[in-house]
Amino acid sequence: PGLLLGDVFPDFEAETTNGKIKLHEFLGDSWGILFSHPRDYTPVCTTELGRIARLSSEFSKRNIKIIALSIDSLEDHHGWTKDILAYNCEESACCSLPFSIIADSKRELAVALGMLDPDEKDKDGLPLTARCVFIIGPDKRLKLSLLYPATTGRNFDEILRAVDSLQITARKRVATPADWRPGDCVMVPPNMSEEEAASLFPAGVYTKDLPSGKKYLRYTPQE
Amino acid sequence: PGLLLGDVFPDFEAETTNGKIKLHEFLGDSWGILFSHPRDYTPVCTTELGRIARLSSEFSKRNIKIIALSIDSLEDHHGWTKDILAYNCEESACCSLPFSIIADSKRELAVALGMLDPDEKDKDGLPLTARCVFIIGPDKRLKLSLLYPATTGRNFDEILRAVDSLQITARKRVATPADWRPGDCVMVPPNMSEEEAASLFPAGVYTKDLPSGKKYLRYTPQE
Repeated sequence: PGLLLGDVFPDFEAETTNGKIKLHEFLGDSWGILFSHPRDYTPVCTTELGRIARLSSEFSKRNIKIIALSIDSLEDHHGWTKDILAYNCEESACCSLPFSIIADSKRELAVALGMLDPDEKDKDGLPLTARCVFIIGPDKRLKLSLLYPATTGRNFDEILRAVDSLQITARKRVATPADWRPGDCVMVPPNMSEEEAASLFPAGVYTKDLPSGKKYLRYTPQE
Repeated sequence: PGLLLGDVFPDFEAETTNGKIKLHEFLGDSWGILFSHPRDYTPVCTTELGRIARLSSEFSKRNIKIIALSIDSLEDHHGWTKDILAYNCEESACCSLPFSIIADSKRELAVALGMLDPDEKDKDGLPLTARCVFIIGPDKRLKLSLLYPATTGRNFDEILRAVDSLQITARKRVATPADWRPGDCVMVPPNMSEEEAASLFPAGVYTKDLPSGKKYLRYTPQE
C-alpha cells in the first residue's frame, strides 16, 4: 500500500552510510525529503544522486534534510559514492557526499513504504525500488509524493519548485497556480472574504471576471 | 491505500461531462492520464484545467487520452467549464473543453484510488481530492504518479517531459538521466553488453570512466 498525503511518515531505524539513524530524530524540526533509487552502480541513479549533491546548498537553505535509499549494501553505497563524486567533478577525490544513503538490503522499508517497481528486477528476480520522492513536513506528515519508474530520471528543478510552493503556502494563506515559479503572483484561497484578503494582502488583489460571476480567481503579488 | 507502480489501474464506470464511461474501454489502446483536482470554482484548479485544455494537441500528438475528476456534481462541472474557457481566452464562448470531467460526487473513486487530501475539507468537513496525476500505459498499468496538495499547482511541462521519457523508454531499451529534456542524450541500460550496445546504437556510445572501473555510465544520442 502506498502512502497518502497527510499520513504521518512512518518512523524507522536504518543503517546508513553515516551510521544508524532514527528517521524522526534525524529530521528534528526540519523538512525532509526521502529519495529512493533502484540500484547503486547504474547510470540514471548516478546522474540523480550527483544532482542532489550539487543542490545540497539549495536544500539546506530551505531547511530540508535529505536522505537517499536503495536496497544495496553499505559496502556498495560507499564504493559507488566515489563514482558519483567523480561524475560531478574530476577533482572531487577529497569531497564526501553531503547526505546519507540508507542500506535497505532486506527490502523492509521498500515494502513498507510502497517503493518497489515490479518492472525492474535484480538478477535473482527480486524487484528493485522505484524513483520515489517523499516530501515530509516539520509535522512529520507526507506533503507531496512522486513515483517515477527506473527508466525515467526525475526533474530536480521541479522538486525545488514544489518545495518552494509547499513552504510558502505553509507560511501564508495563499496557493500557487499551475506552472508557478518563485516570484510569480500567488492565489488567494477561495474561502477568504474580500475584506480579509484586502487587509492581508496590502500589495493588492486582482480578481478576474468570469462567466459564473463568482469572485474566486484572485491573484496577489508574492511577498 | 495508494496505487503502486505496475498496478493494473482499476477499471470503473463513472458519470462524466460527456456521458457515462468505462475507464478501460475509454482508454482503448492509448496511453491515459487521470488528473484529479480539489474543487470546481476554485482558483488553482481553474489555472490547471485551463493549461490542460491548452495542451490538448500535445496530449493527442502523444496518443494520450485525458480525463479529469473531482467530487463535484455534473452541474458544477458544466457551469465551471465556462469559467475555465473564459480564463483561457476571452473569445472562447464557442469552444468546449477538449476532455471530460468525472463527477465523483459520492467520493467512491477518490477513496478507492487514494486521492483524498485530509488537509482540505469542504464546508461539511469532508476531505477533498488532492492534485493527483496517474499516467497509465497502453497495458492499463500505472507507469508514474504524482500527489500534490491543494495549495500547490502542478507543473505541466514536467508532466509532458515525463510522458516523453515514458514513451521513448517503452519503445527502446534506453533510460533518461536526471533532468533530461527531449533531444538530450539517453542512457544505455546497465545490463546491456558492450557488443549489443554497439549494434543497437550505431550513432555511438560514450562511456565515462569512473573510479570503480565499472563501465555503466553510458550515453548515446537520442534517435
